[in-house]
Amino acid sequence: MTAPSDTTDARLESWLPVAAGSDFPIQNLPFGVFTSEGRLPRIGVAIGESVLDCFELAEAGFVDDCCEPELLQAPLLNPLLAAGREQWTALRERLSSLLRADGDRRLRDANPSRFLVARADATMHVPMEVGDYVDFYSSIEHATNLGRIFRPDADALLPNWRWLPVGYHGRSSTIVVDGTPVRRPCGQRKLPTAPNPEFGTSRRLDIELEMGFVTGPGNRLGEPIAMADASEHIFGLVLVNDWSARDIQAWEYQPLGPFLGKSFATSISPWIVTLEALEPFRIEGPLQEPQPLEYLRSGDPWAYAITLEVRLQTARMRGSGTAPVRISQTTFRDMYWNVAQQLAHATANGAVTRPGDLFASGTISGSAPGTQGSLIELTWNGEHPLQLPEGETRGFLEDGDEITLLGWCERPGARRIGFGSVRGRIEAPQGRV
Amino acid sequence: MTAPSDTTDARLESWLPVAAGSDFPIQNLPFGVFTSEGRLPRIGVAIGESVLDCFELAEAGFVDDCCEPELLQAPLLNPLLAAGREQWTALRERLSSLLRADGDRRLRDANPSRFLVARADATMHVPMEVGDYVDFYSSIEHATNLGRIFRPDADALLPNWRWLPVGYHGRSSTIVVDGTPVRRPCGQRKLPTAPNPEFGTSRRLDIELEMGFVTGPGNRLGEPIAMADASEHIFGLVLVNDWSARDIQAWEYQPLGPFLGKSFATSISPWIVTLEALEPFRIEGPLQEPQPLEYLRSGDPWAYAITLEVRLQTARMRGSGTAPVRISQTTFRDMYWNVAQQLAHATANGAVTRPGDLFASGTISGSAPGTQGSLIELTWNGEHPLQLPEGETRGFLEDGDEITLLGWCERPGARRIGFGSVRGRIEAPQGRV
Repeated sequence: MTAPSDTTDARLESWLPVAAGSDFPIQNLPFGVFTSEGRLPRIGVAIGESVLDCFELAEAGFVDDCCEPELLQAPLLNPLLAAGREQWTALRERLSSLLRADGDRRLRDANPSRFLVARADATMHVPMEVGDYVDFYSSIEHATNLGRIFRPDADALLPNWRWLPVGYHGRSSTIVVDGTPVRRPCGQRKLPTAPNPEFGTSRRLDIELEMGFVTGPGNRLGEPIAMADASEHIFGLVLVNDWSARDIQAWEYQPLGPFLGKSFATSISPWIVTLEALEPFRIEGPLQEPQPLEYLRSGDPWAYAITLEVRLQTARMRGSGTAPVRISQTTFRDMYWNVAQQLAHATANGAVTRPGDLFASGTISGSAPGTQGSLIELTWNGEHPLQLPEGETRGFLEDGDEITLLGWCERPGARRIGFGSVRGRIEAPQGRV
Repeated sequence: MTAPSDTTDARLESWLPVAAGSDFPIQNLPFGVFTSEGRLPRIGVAIGESVLDCFELAEAGFVDDCCEPELLQAPLLNPLLAAGREQWTALRERLSSLLRADGDRRLRDANPSRFLVARADATMHVPMEVGDYVDFYSSIEHATNLGRIFRPDADALLPNWRWLPVGYHGRSSTIVVDGTPVRRPCGQRKLPTAPNPEFGTSRRLDIELEMGFVTGPGNRLGEPIAMADASEHIFGLVLVNDWSARDIQAWEYQPLGPFLGKSFATSISPWIVTLEALEPFRIEGPLQEPQPLEYLRSGDPWAYAITLEVRLQTARMRGSGTAPVRISQTTFRDMYWNVAQQLAHATANGAVTRPGDLFASGTISGSAPGTQGSLIELTWNGEHPLQLPEGETRGFLEDGDEITLLGWCERPGARRIGFGSVRGRIEAPQGRV
């Protein structure tokens, strides 16, 4: 990847109106899948308050000389993800040219209503078929905090943690998009004082603020992806809320790891922000001690300076018109293990990664108060509840609570690149309780 | 489900020759996906030494009044799996009628070469797209043995084990079919005496003898599958070899469970044996103490009396013409947690199961010597190597070793129902070691 490129130049302007501070200036151009006006799902690119309809772009022949039209006329991003970086770059340059004030005039001179849909009128979908979903555990502060809470009598950080990016497979069937309600799950849980477990609705429903990367072409069985090739296989990033039922998780997770405490829902933001768009915010990550083993080393910077925020609005706040309150603000930049290391590690044994796979970072937590990415950390297992407007408190989530995750990149000399948001509201369980 | 049905009657005979003791009499009729003569993948049903070509059956109109032809003219079983039990039963009855000596004569009177392929000439494939793959841990003997080996200083069986079927998500992208070579994986491993881990090829490569069930229609998000509805959602069973790199697993698995120690390959047998075919071998499972919680209870018998065998042939044995030797024989009938409980538990939190999902049982081990489903148990972590013909010994697998898993059901008054086999040969790693 080269940086800065024409398409990330902060001076670029689109002929389409883009408000100052928008998450989606012409330097961003994230990909998603949308429906509008009862049509079948289509690939779209966010620009300002609009969605650029890629199906129509291909239909009009505007990408003919840079991209197979079929890649843009699919109901999911998987074919485009499979096409690889050279194709992604050519397409990005074309989109940028078609949208910029001094670029290719064909789109600008055409009937814009054919090609543009208001973002407010578009229904967004999970933009790819996710073959496998992996969740890492790559924040040292989060791993330390959870070790202290779940295993108070042992070392908080296990011996393997600084040597490899610990991770596990999650359930891909329950990956849902921004706005999908989350039904409070039932499951087995056991109070520390009770002799036996019981079955019922989770009482310790939590969030996990994460970032996730979506993969491109992928590898063949038995052929690992080297660190040096990671950028060929990582298309872009999304926000992830790895909803977690702490009571179910605590009872079930030994010795084979999280299962039903996590598998009821994982929410992602609808727009995949590409590595190209994030290039101006790519930085060196934290020092790793001990030095990683050879297969996890790289001379390239692989951290991204992404600011992240968690907001909460309770049913009562919504009823009285009180805006969501920020309950955490943190950054992705300090994650101990980076995306390239995660991909190299996950394939080191020859395991196959396919186009559209999702690899989430694990909860992103800082060390200062108010910078943790989960309620279990922010409230220290519920012992120090959050104080909310109108006198409410929260240890864990209650029915009707809505969580919004936000993420964006900003620095002097670059245009803001945003991820939009991923929201989810907790619904009461139906049927047996 | 009703039993015994016309299609399981032991007196049924096909007009096609089926050898005595065949795994695939007319009472079986397992489904798979095959290619032959350079054609695209097709759905097939095994009968004796033949594969019945379901694409051609549908093309000829032989199923028109019982089944949408598209369900049989797909390259994967997923559409048929989605169609549900009523459809499966109608199709099974039709296939049985077309194949039996006293049944529907249309197939028998047609040109058989159009409809039949010799099994020896068919290349088998993973018959379904697996959305999510879950692996349980449901043999009490196996869980006890591994607890003793991995956690010698703690209780072998953790407190949750008798209350819920412990399980985790595996990697669906590396599910491979019978005969696919298994490349020895690389990974991090740490000798107990070494201060640091190192990266290299696994030295403790193992098998896990398992059964897996393949799901049908599945549920909607937030709506669990009750025990009473399990048979609507379980299509059939396959043999599973959950290859395991014990050194990688031991170093990585805490606290989030198995990851790269398992994700390099999972082999399945090519023929899915339906629940209908297994009905004569359905029995009461072992007593569960304590009594399971309400959502895991059923008045129906949910164990299956399946005999299982593991065979090993080393490269030297192959070279000298020595047949594979049996290294384990055990049974599926004693598994503590059954398939219906596994499905009810996995969806108890509302998680979605899709057509084609695979749920494996976990290693199947008995308590008597020689009845364990993994080398780590059979050799007690390599301390008591297996003695093989020609003076060889094995603690774990060496390059060139080929493992074959076999499974079948037999009892007086019923025809043998077999699973065929799942084989895998260990290849040396390529590239960096």
